[in-house]
Amino acid sequence: MTMTEKTATTKVQEAQAASLELATLSDAERKRGLHAIADAIDDSHEEILAANEKDVEAGEELLAAGEYSQALVDRLKLSESKLESITDMVRSVAEQDDPLGETLAARRLDDDLELFKVAVPIGVVGTIFESRPDALVQIAALGLKSGNAVILKGGSEASHSNRILYEIIREATADLPDGWAQQIEAREDVDAILEMDDSIDLLMPRGSSEFVQYIQDNTSIPVLGHTEGICHVFVDAEADLEMATDVAFDAKVQYPAVCNAVETLLVHADVAEAFLPEMVERYREADVEVRGDDRVQELVDVEAATDEDWATEYGDLVLSVAVVDSLTDAIGHITQYGSKHTESILTEDDERASKFMRSLDSASVFHNASTRFSDGYRFGLGAEVGISTGKIHARGPVGLEGLTTYKYHLEGDGHRVATYAGEDARPFSHEEFDGEWTDASRTE
Amino acid sequence: MTMTEKTATTKVQEAQAASLELATLSDAERKRGLHAIADAIDDSHEEILAANEKDVEAGEELLAAGEYSQALVDRLKLSESKLESITDMVRSVAEQDDPLGETLAARRLDDDLELFKVAVPIGVVGTIFESRPDALVQIAALGLKSGNAVILKGGSEASHSNRILYEIIREATADLPDGWAQQIEAREDVDAILEMDDSIDLLMPRGSSEFVQYIQDNTSIPVLGHTEGICHVFVDAEADLEMATDVAFDAKVQYPAVCNAVETLLVHADVAEAFLPEMVERYREADVEVRGDDRVQELVDVEAATDEDWATEYGDLVLSVAVVDSLTDAIGHITQYGSKHTESILTEDDERASKFMRSLDSASVFHNASTRFSDGYRFGLGAEVGISTGKIHARGPVGLEGLTTYKYHLEGDGHRVATYAGEDARPFSHEEFDGEWTDASRTE
Repeated sequence: MTMTEKTATTKVQEAQAASLELATLSDAERKRGLHAIADAIDDSHEEILAANEKDVEAGEELLAAGEYSQALVDRLKLSESKLESITDMVRSVAEQDDPLGETLAARRLDDDLELFKVAVPIGVVGTIFESRPDALVQIAALGLKSGNAVILKGGSEASHSNRILYEIIREATADLPDGWAQQIEAREDVDAILEMDDSIDLLMPRGSSEFVQYIQDNTSIPVLGHTEGICHVFVDAEADLEMATDVAFDAKVQYPAVCNAVETLLVHADVAEAFLPEMVERYREADVEVRGDDRVQELVDVEAATDEDWATEYGDLVLSVAVVDSLTDAIGHITQYGSKHTESILTEDDERASKFMRSLDSASVFHNASTRFSDGYRFGLGAEVGISTGKIHARGPVGLEGLTTYKYHLEGDGHRVATYAGEDARPFSHEEFDGEWTDASRTE
Repeated sequence: MTMTEKTATTKVQEAQAASLELATLSDAERKRGLHAIADAIDDSHEEILAANEKDVEAGEELLAAGEYSQALVDRLKLSESKLESITDMVRSVAEQDDPLGETLAARRLDDDLELFKVAVPIGVVGTIFESRPDALVQIAALGLKSGNAVILKGGSEASHSNRILYEIIREATADLPDGWAQQIEAREDVDAILEMDDSIDLLMPRGSSEFVQYIQDNTSIPVLGHTEGICHVFVDAEADLEMATDVAFDAKVQYPAVCNAVETLLVHADVAEAFLPEMVERYREADVEVRGDDRVQELVDVEAATDEDWATEYGDLVLSVAVVDSLTDAIGHITQYGSKHTESILTEDDERASKFMRSLDSASVFHNASTRFSDGYRFGLGAEVGISTGKIHARGPVGLEGLTTYKYHLEGDGHRVATYAGEDARPFSHEEFDGEWTDASRTE
C-alpha cells in the first residue's frame, strides 16, 4: 500500500507517462500481464473475500436502515465461483485478437512514399463505474489488452474490495510501465479529473443515465457511454403475427432490467385487433404490466399510458403499447420519443423493413429479431467495452476496437512537398496497396 | 430572403428534422444537389461579386483604420477566377466516392441472422469558420456529399458574401429536405448552439487555436478540429545529411504559414557539427530566422531560443533548433513540447525510425519525409474536411469519412435471445462474410 496518498492530478500524470510506454508493448507482453493478473487473483481468494465481507457487512447495515436495496447488496457480494468467473473473463480478454498494430489502410503516394494507417491505443482512459467489484478487474483488463492506461474509480460501497483488487493488479503487473493503472476513490477526485482534458483522452462512465449525463455535461473530455435505452418493437401490417408475438415477448421478458429490452411496442392499426389480445394475454401470464393508448384500450383491458410513458425506460416488467396508422407514424413516434439505442421492425415486407432501418437514427435497427440481440457478445465483438448512445467514434455495442484510434505512418526516401507543387508539379499516384507497416524495432 | 428572422434554436431543430430525410437520399440525389449549387454559382457571378465588394470596402476602411491586416482583406476578396475555382471544388466533391451506405463489416450470428455495420451520416454538423467566403461553400458541399445537415456560421467580415452564397445554395437545393443547410450570423447564436447537445452531433470550428480551444471548453458537443501545430523534424545520428538538409528546408520554407510546417528542428549531437553550419546557411538565404539552444549557438551564430520557443507555433519564417544526445531525448523533447500533430525522423536506420514512430503519440509520424505531407489532399483522402488534433473519431487529416459514423443493421427471421440462453443455449456461429446490406426500399 502507498504510504502517502498521491493527488488525483499526480496519478493522472503518471498514467499519461505510462501510456506512452504501454503503446510500445507487444501483444505478447500485454497478454503476459493479463495472465499474471488472473493468476494473482486465483492465489488471493482468501484476502479478496475477507475484504469483500467488510463491504457486504456495511451494505447490509445500510440495507437494514433502508438506504440500500437488496439488489445492490447482492451485486456487491463476491464468492469463490464469482472470482473464478472473473479470472475466466480476464483470460478470455487476454486471448482476444490484438486490437493494436493492424494496418487499417495502406496507400502509395508516389515511388517509395508509402502511407500506413495503423491502429494504436487511445492513451489514457478514465473510468467511473458502479459498485460491482468485478467491474474494476474487467475495465483494467480491457484497458491493458488495448494498450491504454486506465484511471479506475469504483463505487464507494465496494471500496474494500476495489482496493484489494487494485493492489493485486498493480503488484501482478509490476514489470509493466509503472502507473499504467491508477485508482482514485474520492468523489472530489472525479471532479478534478473531469478538468484534465490535456491528460485524459476518453471517459467511460457507467451507471444511471443521470450519472452519465452529469459527466457529459461537466467535462470537455470525450465521453463513451450510454444514457438511456428506450427501445421499440414495431409490429407492421405485414408482420407474421405468430413470429411477432414470440419476438415481442422475448424483447420484454427474457431480461427486462437491461438497456436493450423493449419499452414501447407499436402496433400497426391493420393488425392491432388480430394481434393485441393474444399478445397482452401472453405478457400478463409473465406478469408484465401493460399500459396502452386509447386505441389499445379499445381492444384490451389495460391501464392508460400517459405521455410520460413513451419517454420512460422502465427497466422492469412494464411495457407501453400504442397503435399507429402507418410505417411513417411508427418512425415518427420512435424519432420523437426514442433514445437512438435499438429498434426492431417485425414484417414480412423487405421494402418496408429497409425503409424503417434507413429512416431511424438509432445505433441498432433490426428486422425480425429481438432488441435483446443488441449486445457486444451476441454481435460477436468479443469483449464488450460498453454500449454507446453517442454517434462519434463508436456507436452501439463497443468492442476493444472502441478503445483504439489510429496514427498515420509515412515512409519516404527524402521526399519534399516542393516536388509536388508549382509549375512542374509531379503528380501523386495515390494507389491503395495491400501492405502492412513493418516495425523494424521489434524483435519478437 | 426570409421575412422574419428565425431563432438559432429553430434553425437547428429544422436542420435536425432535415438530417433524417437527408440520410435516406441516394448518392445520385446528393450529387445532383451539388451540381445544382455549382451551376447556380456560375449563373450568379455578378450578384456575388457585388455583395463581396461591400465586404471588401468595409474591410478596406478597417484596414485604413489599422484594425484589419492586408492579408485579411486579401482573403476576403472574390474574383471571377476565384469563383471558378469554388465551383470546380464543388463539382469535385460531387464526384468523390460516396462515403455512405458501404457495408463496413458483415457477420453471420446464426442461420438467417445477419449483422451489417453500415456507414451513415453523423446527422447535424455545426461549423464555425473564418472569413474566406469560399469556406461557406466548401463546408456546405462536404456536408451535403456526406448526407449531413449543416449549421453555417461565417466570419462577420464576410457577411454580405456569405449571405448571398447561402441564399444561392438554399435556392439551388430547394428540392432537397427543407432546412438541410442553415445560416447563423450573430455571435450570441454561437453561444446558443454550443448548448444544443441534443440536436447537434458534431462541431467543426476553424480558426485560431485559441478559438478552437474556446469552443472545446464551452460545449459538451464533440468537437473535430485542430488547435496547435508544433511539428518537429529530428535529424538522427544515422541521417543522410544531404537528404536531411533538403527535407528540413522544405518542411520550413515551402509554406511556413500552415500548421504542418516544422517549428522545431532537433539534431543529434553526433552530426550537429557536420550538419548545422550548412543547414543554417541555407535557411538564412531563405530569410528564416533561426533560434538555437546553447549547443547550437556554439556551432552557428544564431539568436538564443528560450523555453517559450519550444512551445511556439510561429507560422512564419522562424525556427527553433536544439541539439539532443539521443533518440530517447528527441522523443522526450517532442513529448514535452509537441502538439501531437506531425513529427518526422530523418535517418537511414530503420530500427531507430520505427522506434521514433511507435513511441510518439502524434497523429502523423514520418520517416525521411517532410512534415508538409500531413494533408488530406497529399494523403489521397479526397476532399479534406479538416485536420484533427483530437484522438477520438478522426485523427490527423480528415476526409469525408470523418463526417460519417455507422449503424448496425440486423436481419433475422424471428430470432429470440432466449434461444441462446440457459441450459440448452444454442451457440452463435459469428462468422464474418463478404455480404452487403441490401436496401430493398431503393429503386435507383
